Amino acid sequence: MENQVLLDTFWVLLCAMLVFFMNLGFASVESGFARSKNTVNILSKNFIVFAVSSLGFYVLGWGLMFGDGNGFIGTQGLFFTSGVDNSPAIGDAYEGVYSAISWAGVPFWAKFFFQLVFCGTAATIVSGAVAERIKYVSFIIFSFILTLLIYPIVGHWIWGGGWLAQKGFLDFAGGTVVHSIGGWAALTGVIILGPRVGKYTKDGKINPIPGHNMGLATIGAFVLWLGWFGFNPGSTMALNPEAISHILVSTNSAGIMGILVATAVTWKVTGKPDLGMSINGLLAGLVAITPACAYVSIPASYLIGAISGIIVVFAVIKFDNLKLDDPVGALAVHLANGVFGTLSVGLFAQDGITGITTMNGLFYGGGFKLLGVQALGVVCVAAFVLATSAITWIVIKNTIGLRVSLREEIEGLDIGEHGNQAYPEFVIRKPSYIHVSEDIHAVSTGNITPKKAKIK
Amino acid sequence: MENQVLLDTFWVLLCAMLVFFMNLGFASVESGFARSKNTVNILSKNFIVFAVSSLGFYVLGWGLMFGDGNGFIGTQGLFFTSGVDNSPAIGDAYEGVYSAISWAGVPFWAKFFFQLVFCGTAATIVSGAVAERIKYVSFIIFSFILTLLIYPIVGHWIWGGGWLAQKGFLDFAGGTVVHSIGGWAALTGVIILGPRVGKYTKDGKINPIPGHNMGLATIGAFVLWLGWFGFNPGSTMALNPEAISHILVSTNSAGIMGILVATAVTWKVTGKPDLGMSINGLLAGLVAITPACAYVSIPASYLIGAISGIIVVFAVIKFDNLKLDDPVGALAVHLANGVFGTLSVGLFAQDGITGITTMNGLFYGGGFKLLGVQALGVVCVAAFVLATSAITWIVIKNTIGLRVSLREEIEGLDIGEHGNQAYPEFVIRKPSYIHVSEDIHAVSTGNITPKKAKIK
Amino acid sequence: MENQVLLDTFWVLLCAMLVFFMNLGFASVESGFARSKNTVNILSKNFIVFAVSSLGFYVLGWGLMFGDGNGFIGTQGLFFTSGVDNSPAIGDAYEGVYSAISWAGVPFWAKFFFQLVFCGTAATIVSGAVAERIKYVSFIIFSFILTLLIYPIVGHWIWGGGWLAQKGFLDFAGGTVVHSIGGWAALTGVIILGPRVGKYTKDGKINPIPGHNMGLATIGAFVLWLGWFGFNPGSTMALNPEAISHILVSTNSAGIMGILVATAVTWKVTGKPDLGMSINGLLAGLVAITPACAYVSIPASYLIGAISGIIVVFAVIKFDNLKLDDPVGALAVHLANGVFGTLSVGLFAQDGITGITTMNGLFYGGGFKLLGVQALGVVCVAAFVLATSAITWIVIKNTIGLRVSLREEIEGLDIGEHGNQAYPEFVIRKPSYIHVSEDIHAVSTGNITPKKAKIK
Repeated sequence: MENQVLLDTFWVLLCAMLVFFMNLGFASVESGFARSKNTVNILSKNFIVFAVSSLGFYVLGWGLMFGDGNGFIGTQGLFFTSGVDNSPAIGDAYEGVYSAISWAGVPFWAKFFFQLVFCGTAATIVSGAVAERIKYVSFIIFSFILTLLIYPIVGHWIWGGGWLAQKGFLDFAGGTVVHSIGGWAALTGVIILGPRVGKYTKDGKINPIPGHNMGLATIGAFVLWLGWFGFNPGSTMALNPEAISHILVSTNSAGIMGILVATAVTWKVTGKPDLGMSINGLLAGLVAITPACAYVSIPASYLIGAISGIIVVFAVIKFDNLKLDDPVGALAVHLANGVFGTLSVGLFAQDGITGITTMNGLFYGGGFKLLGVQALGVVCVAAFVLATSAITWIVIKNTIGLRVSLREEIEGLDIGEHGNQAYPEFVIRKPSYIHVSEDIHAVSTGNITPKKAKIK
Repeated sequence: MENQVLLDTFWVLLCAMLVFFMNLGFASVESGFARSKNTVNILSKNFIVFAVSSLGFYVLGWGLMFGDGNGFIGTQGLFFTSGVDNSPAIGDAYEGVYSAISWAGVPFWAKFFFQLVFCGTAATIVSGAVAERIKYVSFIIFSFILTLLIYPIVGHWIWGGGWLAQKGFLDFAGGTVVHSIGGWAALTGVIILGPRVGKYTKDGKINPIPGHNMGLATIGAFVLWLGWFGFNPGSTMALNPEAISHILVSTNSAGIMGILVATAVTWKVTGKPDLGMSINGLLAGLVAITPACAYVSIPASYLIGAISGIIVVFAVIKFDNLKLDDPVGALAVHLANGVFGTLSVGLFAQDGITGITTMNGLFYGGGFKLLGVQALGVVCVAAFVLATSAITWIVIKNTIGLRVSLREEIEGLDIGEHGNQAYPEFVIRKPSYIHVSEDIHAVSTGNITPKKAKIK
Repeated sequence: MENQVLLDTFWVLLCAMLVFFMNLGFASVESGFARSKNTVNILSKNFIVFAVSSLGFYVLGWGLMFGDGNGFIGTQGLFFTSGVDNSPAIGDAYEGVYSAISWAGVPFWAKFFFQLVFCGTAATIVSGAVAERIKYVSFIIFSFILTLLIYPIVGHWIWGGGWLAQKGFLDFAGGTVVHSIGGWAALTGVIILGPRVGKYTKDGKINPIPGHNMGLATIGAFVLWLGWFGFNPGSTMALNPEAISHILVSTNSAGIMGILVATAVTWKVTGKPDLGMSINGLLAGLVAITPACAYVSIPASYLIGAISGIIVVFAVIKFDNLKLDDPVGALAVHLANGVFGTLSVGLFAQDGITGITTMNGLFYGGGFKLLGVQALGVVCVAAFVLATSAITWIVIKNTIGLRVSLREEIEGLDIGEHGNQAYPEFVIRKPSYIHVSEDIHAVSTGNITPKKAKIK
């Protein structure tokens, strides 16, 4: 077998493992940022979501995304990856029905697993935003639909040779495909579910609900940082030394600027450097550079990271003011910066950075052409994912239900959903920052039924 | 040096690192599943066990396992890996006394480290099953004997060119060599130690003893999942793109089906989806596919994983009914599914899946021949490990002792064995699920001496 | 592109990722070893330190360290890695201003990132020693100066073709460059900051202050162990199968002997096997073998590790007796064993172990020549780092201040510095081991002002 196939396969599998490992990162960050009474539930969701994704992407997702077909969906080799495919043959030697990814010279199962871990990441992004009130089974069903249908269809448009790809839309490692899809799906979930009990009071007050374990959250952040070194450089799907070295450094540069700027902005705005915001600053920088990492220079990656560090702080505040209750800041991180990063390609892209021809961004002589395509992609992906995920959430809501009972939410989902506790031996106190109305207390003590509670 | 040597060495070392990292996974899962008062003890055991294994396998284990000799043990180059060896030479070019592993074209120390991490895994499996009552020093001694003598001898039979290998016994990545050996050794330990105080009451009641930290346990599960991507694909000991891609996906497929099925079965049986059982479902699927991963198709790996998810739930219940007290479910995971996986090779193996010739399993036209050999291996390994580990445990018990005092067990091993606490600042409550007889309370309050306590 | 460039780049980037991951290890070990009231602060420091290092090393550090210049500093291509460089060209084909590292045949950004993660490690070592009383902003500034100026200058002497390199000083993976620099900088910080309140009482008593979370600490230790498999074998910066296999095993061998010996010595001395000391034993062994890993035989690595396990136990005790308050044992681990390891090269080095020509150590026929050079290096690095870091600490102290207020220190830095808590829901008790004088209690209850408190 050709040497390049050996090298590329090794590289792709290693990077896929790193991206897979991000499941640990998301599980830790999300459970650390939430309350102890919901920890088992969050861990359970983040633990099963990759299993659900693995099934959904195997059953149909892969085929919809990479099967030959039309500009909108794949239509060949749809189910169970059953199409003809002679990977790792490439170019003219390739014979099969998954031609959109035939440029990657690795065996079929390497392609499948690499793409699967990206699909799984989109699903796990949703998890944090809907945390602390969604029913376990409802989240499982949504994740299955997302990885079976929604993600693969948009993925087909961009990475499967579909209509956006044909227009020249650029998304190197998934700023739109992974982070924005996850972000839009999360947004609809947040809207349809409504905020957590006690988060927004009737008199307009916003109660901060601090995470219960910052050690867990920080471990998660480091693991995500590491995982991104597979996410972005691995998206070459080839061991190209110059490209992967460049992408690793552009990725890290944006991430560290996200940390530094978000920390500084928070320090300035609130008077203290908040660790949670430093973590979200990292993630913001990493998300923002994701679509652009192979197209922009190192100085540009510093700049993109710095801007993302500003965006994330104000986006967190903005979403909160809009009463969009996102316990972990997933919307500010993945949605706001997924969109910003996708647009930043239209601003900062340069031909030849890693040997790739772009149309050049606005700041590098390309005019508004690339930026326009990027903006079109953002809008169309938004429209499609908002619509399809809203339908999915609403169907679930009207069949098996979406949200746990008010009593269960107050008592914690761990007992109600899982019959378990994350820390059965530690003494937990009701934190002083919890201010719930008397109605809620009445509910929780059984004096009135949940239906009578005024707070939704 | 030949290019393939470079690639294979890189692959083998990377996978060895991943398998090494499983030590973190086991430490986290086991301590998370146990009580806070024994956390330092469990962490200490899992921390030192790889050091002990490294010594035992270096001093004698390697030589017994891979040294040229007879069908039962290696007899050449026994001590301190001191035999002649011109690795990475292979085939006819190989000159040395470790010919059984001369097919792997990597330097000697790469072979050694890769095999060491597997040996270490077998030892760490025992740790969880005997947790919360074994003396630290006794566990250390047992681990040393296991890695010095027991594991290497069985390893010689199967991977060292011994009698089982000659009969055609197949164990690709250690379903028998690692998981069943660890499992049988754990079983003898569990029997000889007896259950934890308060686990089984005189009136026949089984008290569940929940783990104290599900975040820790879940982190561990993800790390084990990642580690398995080194464990199974790495067992090629060569960078064979088709083979490693296939094995990675067969491994993941079985693991995710283990999660999904074990979760569903528990949900059905107990009414709630238990996170601990989801984790053990993952591990069950990964263990079951370990011996088979390179011999079976992807659909077969889904099926094997699904069956393992059923097995693990009922095995946990069965072992508990047999009053075999295994705090972390290691017997259900590693023993039951190590055996099942080994037998599943005899059912599902197909020639040529990754370019390997098998005898074909029962379902693929091979008749009962391969299945018979696999069953013979299971029985003989069981007999040998049960006997040798029982002798080891009993000798330890009758010399330095095996079990901590009743008082120490009740107060926690952390104070008694280590003079330390895992969480000295957190307020710990006596969980409501602890129901110990008045005798025990009397012991713990010093009113009677441990010897008089009726519960053993 | 040449095949070796592909392989070497892949290897270098993988190892760099592993070393990067050590940031998680340090964050976990350090926060686990400290008190819960300072956890957010420690996590924040360890989280931002790599961001700060990434900036400092990019802005000037790289240029000072690897720029062509004189024996003391680099003078070309100083700022923003802006010098000419045609990497991955090597030898005569190399054209550029970073010739000292032109032997590594990988792209520029791969070199940069690999060297950056080592620089970041030196900075993160300081963090633990100064924990629980340093101001967040002051630590950030010190880290920036360390990675901008101090580390790169010494790095230039040894790895940048400077005067120590020319004398034949050997430091394969950074026993001096990383661990001793970090250690000396930490020592000056510890002296200038002074001990934590309550650690040493006026009557000469030393109060042990146990870590608050041994699970976190142990996770960190395993991650550091894994990271070292990148740190040492990666320092080949080339995929040399024999060398990397050897170095991996020499690294692990020293680490495991560090564990076993430190555990045994503590057991003997204190009557109990302390997990914290087992962890520091591992790190001691890994640090000690770092400069020597490619120059010494496997048996010698066992011996070096064993000695380091003795050193670390007695160094911890000694530093404590000297009232040098180091919450995590960083001085005993990184400084004492960084120095020991550097000298051990002068004792145990042998020509040709991994194809490298040394001058041979004292025990292998080289006489005192190499040992003398190593000792000279230890002394000169000590003098330079002690002086420059002391100046830096003192300037910070006299401008923005170095230490939090007494009140803040007693209440915990998390609230004072970050307005946050690591575990807001867990009930924390004042551990019984805290013995502070009445003055302190008076301060903490507001009866007297901090300035009047007698304990500094």
